[in-house]
Amino acid sequence: MAKLTWGMIGGGAGSQIGPAHRLGAGLDGHFAFAAGALDHRAADGVAYGRSLGLPDDRSYGTWQDMLAGERTRSDRVDLVTVATPNATHFAITKAFLEAGFHVLCEKPLTMTIEEAEEIVRLAAACDLICAVNYGYSGYPLVRHMRAMVARGDLGRIRLVKAEFAHGHHADATDADNPRIRWRYDPAQAGVSAQFADCGIHALHMACFVTGQAVTELSADTVSCIATRELEDDAMVNFRMDGGTVGRLWTSSIALGNQHGLSLQLFGEKGGLRWAQEQPNQLYHMPLGGRLQVIERGEPNLSPEADRATRVTIGHAEGMPLAFANLYADLAEAIRAREEGRAMDPAANLYPRAEDGLRSMAAIFAVAQSGRNAGAWCDARPPMFR
Amino acid sequence: MAKLTWGMIGGGAGSQIGPAHRLGAGLDGHFAFAAGALDHRAADGVAYGRSLGLPDDRSYGTWQDMLAGERTRSDRVDLVTVATPNATHFAITKAFLEAGFHVLCEKPLTMTIEEAEEIVRLAAACDLICAVNYGYSGYPLVRHMRAMVARGDLGRIRLVKAEFAHGHHADATDADNPRIRWRYDPAQAGVSAQFADCGIHALHMACFVTGQAVTELSADTVSCIATRELEDDAMVNFRMDGGTVGRLWTSSIALGNQHGLSLQLFGEKGGLRWAQEQPNQLYHMPLGGRLQVIERGEPNLSPEADRATRVTIGHAEGMPLAFANLYADLAEAIRAREEGRAMDPAANLYPRAEDGLRSMAAIFAVAQSGRNAGAWCDARPPMFR
Amino acid sequence: MAKLTWGMIGGGAGSQIGPAHRLGAGLDGHFAFAAGALDHRAADGVAYGRSLGLPDDRSYGTWQDMLAGERTRSDRVDLVTVATPNATHFAITKAFLEAGFHVLCEKPLTMTIEEAEEIVRLAAACDLICAVNYGYSGYPLVRHMRAMVARGDLGRIRLVKAEFAHGHHADATDADNPRIRWRYDPAQAGVSAQFADCGIHALHMACFVTGQAVTELSADTVSCIATRELEDDAMVNFRMDGGTVGRLWTSSIALGNQHGLSLQLFGEKGGLRWAQEQPNQLYHMPLGGRLQVIERGEPNLSPEADRATRVTIGHAEGMPLAFANLYADLAEAIRAREEGRAMDPAANLYPRAEDGLRSMAAIFAVAQSGRNAGAWCDARPPMFR
Amino acid sequence: MAKLTWGMIGGGAGSQIGPAHRLGAGLDGHFAFAAGALDHRAADGVAYGRSLGLPDDRSYGTWQDMLAGERTRSDRVDLVTVATPNATHFAITKAFLEAGFHVLCEKPLTMTIEEAEEIVRLAAACDLICAVNYGYSGYPLVRHMRAMVARGDLGRIRLVKAEFAHGHHADATDADNPRIRWRYDPAQAGVSAQFADCGIHALHMACFVTGQAVTELSADTVSCIATRELEDDAMVNFRMDGGTVGRLWTSSIALGNQHGLSLQLFGEKGGLRWAQEQPNQLYHMPLGGRLQVIERGEPNLSPEADRATRVTIGHAEGMPLAFANLYADLAEAIRAREEGRAMDPAANLYPRAEDGLRSMAAIFAVAQSGRNAGAWCDARPPMFR
Repeated sequence: MAKLTWGMIGGGAGSQIGPAHRLGAGLDGHFAFAAGALDHRAADGVAYGRSLGLPDDRSYGTWQDMLAGERTRSDRVDLVTVATPNATHFAITKAFLEAGFHVLCEKPLTMTIEEAEEIVRLAAACDLICAVNYGYSGYPLVRHMRAMVARGDLGRIRLVKAEFAHGHHADATDADNPRIRWRYDPAQAGVSAQFADCGIHALHMACFVTGQAVTELSADTVSCIATRELEDDAMVNFRMDGGTVGRLWTSSIALGNQHGLSLQLFGEKGGLRWAQEQPNQLYHMPLGGRLQVIERGEPNLSPEADRATRVTIGHAEGMPLAFANLYADLAEAIRAREEGRAMDPAANLYPRAEDGLRSMAAIFAVAQSGRNAGAWCDARPPMFR
Repeated sequence: MAKLTWGMIGGGAGSQIGPAHRLGAGLDGHFAFAAGALDHRAADGVAYGRSLGLPDDRSYGTWQDMLAGERTRSDRVDLVTVATPNATHFAITKAFLEAGFHVLCEKPLTMTIEEAEEIVRLAAACDLICAVNYGYSGYPLVRHMRAMVARGDLGRIRLVKAEFAHGHHADATDADNPRIRWRYDPAQAGVSAQFADCGIHALHMACFVTGQAVTELSADTVSCIATRELEDDAMVNFRMDGGTVGRLWTSSIALGNQHGLSLQLFGEKGGLRWAQEQPNQLYHMPLGGRLQVIERGEPNLSPEADRATRVTIGHAEGMPLAFANLYADLAEAIRAREEGRAMDPAANLYPRAEDGLRSMAAIFAVAQSGRNAGAWCDARPPMFR
Repeated sequence: MAKLTWGMIGGGAGSQIGPAHRLGAGLDGHFAFAAGALDHRAADGVAYGRSLGLPDDRSYGTWQDMLAGERTRSDRVDLVTVATPNATHFAITKAFLEAGFHVLCEKPLTMTIEEAEEIVRLAAACDLICAVNYGYSGYPLVRHMRAMVARGDLGRIRLVKAEFAHGHHADATDADNPRIRWRYDPAQAGVSAQFADCGIHALHMACFVTGQAVTELSADTVSCIATRELEDDAMVNFRMDGGTVGRLWTSSIALGNQHGLSLQLFGEKGGLRWAQEQPNQLYHMPLGGRLQVIERGEPNLSPEADRATRVTIGHAEGMPLAFANLYADLAEAIRAREEGRAMDPAANLYPRAEDGLRSMAAIFAVAQSGRNAGAWCDARPPMFR
Repeated sequence: MAKLTWGMIGGGAGSQIGPAHRLGAGLDGHFAFAAGALDHRAADGVAYGRSLGLPDDRSYGTWQDMLAGERTRSDRVDLVTVATPNATHFAITKAFLEAGFHVLCEKPLTMTIEEAEEIVRLAAACDLICAVNYGYSGYPLVRHMRAMVARGDLGRIRLVKAEFAHGHHADATDADNPRIRWRYDPAQAGVSAQFADCGIHALHMACFVTGQAVTELSADTVSCIATRELEDDAMVNFRMDGGTVGRLWTSSIALGNQHGLSLQLFGEKGGLRWAQEQPNQLYHMPLGGRLQVIERGEPNLSPEADRATRVTIGHAEGMPLAFANLYADLAEAIRAREEGRAMDPAANLYPRAEDGLRSMAAIFAVAQSGRNAGAWCDARPPMFR
């Protein structure tokens, strides 16, 4: 298989997300890193790109330069990853889609629901891939949960319980720490802090594994550290379009939790439990049976899990490989288009612009409900109502 | 120490709660089982009481007989345990208090808030002990949580997260099982099923460890099995009079959970986590430190934990001993009164009529909020507003 | 059922084992505590016995007095528990058996193999119960392990792996602590310290669950704290008479382990894992299947487990109830004899003099092998060779 | 940093270890995959190499061709990985070292102690890197264990307890499965099966974290499945040159264990516990303190752990990243040599030929002791006696 090529906007020196994307894209050898505009300080970005091995003429100073440079090349990149500050996602994603590039955008896709709807419409009109990086959906056993639900192993899903609660912002004396402060400042973070940052991952997973969308929700949002304008803890009750009831807790003051992303599903015929911190085990309780441990890598799991598994049973697999699974999905999606064939359904699992849009709508609904004493709000984007 | 004596109403042949009370009361030798009216079928109750070693004249056919018989004896029982069907708790408790007996009543204390207020007033007026059996507060490490909060180890408590979610009513085909059906029938169970049955224990624990009372709450109650009139799953957000935010999940359809009672506390200076299924470990996360395991039985815990511990560190201790701790508290309370001295503060932890009253108010508030799309409701009993 | 009566030798004020026996014997109401010689300081023992409610004439100053007093009573105790210093077990047990009493002796049964053989022969000749307190065999799920092996669920057992490794003697500066020092002093403790104290429990469990006896063994015994004359850590490899290979690790310097008793079985058709610190779960791996969690209290376990279970599924049950199960077994054994009927086979599980004898032989074999660089030694008592 | 280049011998189509090496070498971008002789079927290997992107002239048919081709190139590979059948490791490693290449050889380094000594001498004489792939030493928290021991956090290490016990060869009906049978056949596997395959990893880790070498050992080796000529289960007791006592259990019939590599250290001042299946937590028990959880990625760990960490705290990291850490060490070692500077001490942790030699000596000692009823054997290579 010829390698695809790939470029990145953002993710300059010192960023955490840049290396994660390069690692994820490169892990399986699907994508060669071929172009970049890595820093808003143009000279720094150019130099850093070269230090990472980009050719001189493809380490750009700005995303506009990169757009201009790549669009005219015959060997232009097959995929553009957008990992810039949130407020710029919309403009960059839009511009690259309009120029005919497939895009993987960091979450959030945009800052408003209207922008997200525009991206969804644009990607559909152009017939281009516009993925959004809800990376936890790449874990093999998360994909297996989805497969089990889809094939009916659990019967109708009555309830989904999701959590993403950590304790890394529990220190009130950190209030002036610039790495933390901006997150709770509406001017910089928008209408929501902890829910938009972490809770939304848990909500995406609830949708991903059930195959359902959120219709309405009620939120109790609080600032446990009183100086914060935005919430550091929220409980969200929701309803899904397939009839499932949802409950989601997110927190950044939950001392004792290191990461705290977990998912429980309760269906008519069984329950499932998975936690990101121990991602290689999935606990399955069949109705009337005993709790069983499903191991990543065991024989005869679903095609979705098998495709996303690299390491044999018993060895720990972790987050970078989950991340790489999204890139592997995208490689398959791009190749299938190039080759004019249907893509492997076990790869057709990457989050897409619609997910980004639904997430934006959920975030705004949480903020609205939180301001209104938990009043139930419509959580659907207008275009899907 | 001379043994105290003790009698029981209810808990006849085949009941689960009867043996638990006899075991708890007898475990430390504080109470001798001396009288009983064990069954609403009078002859059966008399025979069963004799088979348990009660003297012929103190194995009564009805609670009214027992009241009449005991009140005139010079060696009348020191404590009466009421473990009859819920609807009879009020009348029996009231009658025995009026006759000057100390009472331990099973939960719920009454069927209405008004009745509970009457019991609270009566016990206060008579200066009698009226305890309510929220038995999980007897676990040594639950008492240690309370002690840690009280002495300030965690700073102000920002958030308490409680769960009591099991999966034992998840089988929809069980709908006609008489052991389950009545629980979801308002005619028999009142305004609430799963919250009143299990959730209220979790709420009591949240109050017990924080030393705070609930002021208002918002509930999302659902019947995951649609044929049930009362809820089998509920999420309750609440506020406490010391400023703590609360979140409580209870469920009976959570397949994979065997019992599912757990408590997390998040304070300014640290977090705590405890689960009933592994009650001998308490997880403590000090702010800026590492997660630590506090073991039941380790040296230099609090007096509250030490007093409630019988078995050395490392050995499993379980529910029957937690139960016995309530009886040990009551023995100390009764003896202190008899001897005209202050009771050991480490024993002054048994749940009392006020807790039963507050629980009733919470149950009614949950039902009201659940019927009103989660509208926030006052959860305080009228007499405490 | 009329209560049986019960007396105790040893277990005076301040002892740990005394309350444990009284709790275990009294828990189910099978035995009334009726006589005692509780302390080698006669006056203290008499006073303590009275404080526990013994009648004046049955709180004895010495075991000889108790023997003389009880043997002539028509209501003499049905069972005598011996919980005195190790060196006195033989003489007391022998004297009471000769006088026709059933005996439960603390471990070790004797100080020598010869003495143990004498007790075994005596108990058989008198047709009396002589039990030895290997109390961990009372746990419901340990009994269920035995039942699963017996009914063939695991096929032939290839390997048993046992551990009893704690860290409570890891502090070298404790060398002069009198509560610890004597344990490592051959003059007081005999030929073995940690193996005889803890390892022997794990070995008994290996025998109990497999239904096999140890034939030979090889031991590596070390004193990790160099000032100790006897071992504080040992690894024992052994062979059993049903062909099972055994491995057993015991330690008192294993910092991080609070108790550390666990058992793993590996058979042709499946594996089992159980640990005392979480005694309410048993992990079962069927060949070709998935790891499953067997819960104490779940429906359709074995009669052996069901009989030993008091509390419903999901609630923690612990050591005191395991202990009580031995007393319940003994009550059934005594009653069956009195009533001239076969005893309930699910109760016929209490450790007996033969187990005490085999344990003595194993301890001497470990000491001998340890002194001889791990040379394999016959671990069978002479009378069973 | 310019990329280094790297070639591989073995690891052709369908192999498990080939992708693991390519992933590990490529993950951080240190090494470009530049040459290979991937299959003993020459044409298949050439074609597979090209499919992986190797240039036509560097996808070789045999390792001899690769040696001839690479040795004369000015851009010859910086590192050669040997992942061929065990019996060929010696000849290939020797030839490439003699030609001046750095080598990373899969375990076992050789088939005999004499060969391993020859490699050690050769590498030293040539001043070349000869690493051996004991990949578990790449886990960040394993490296942190080593750092804690080295800086004295635990005091003198009294005991190390290692396990590598899985259940994947427990099915006796698998006896004719060719993927399993050869492992227990001395003609193909040498003197040891399970110890040489898995146990040796655990032994290497015991040496790695303590910084000590094994001096003598006693082994109990058994074939639980009787048709196997070589052992499928072994217990090894050993002594180390710093005075630490060791115990190691390895098994392939331990049903219920998926992987089963774990390590416990017990020192004068504390204990540590780590297990490969949950590699992101390390349990630390300080003497007189409480069990604490050390998290991979937490601030202020050792430089050794920090250097080996890519993902932030709370996210799961797994085996592929551990593997990549060895390649990162080798890249640093090669670059330091090229640049004539001392290498980063936190990278100087890759296993080397001496480790391979010591492992060979241990394997032969285990086999010898196993044949001789556990007699203690010298486990040191002759050149280190």
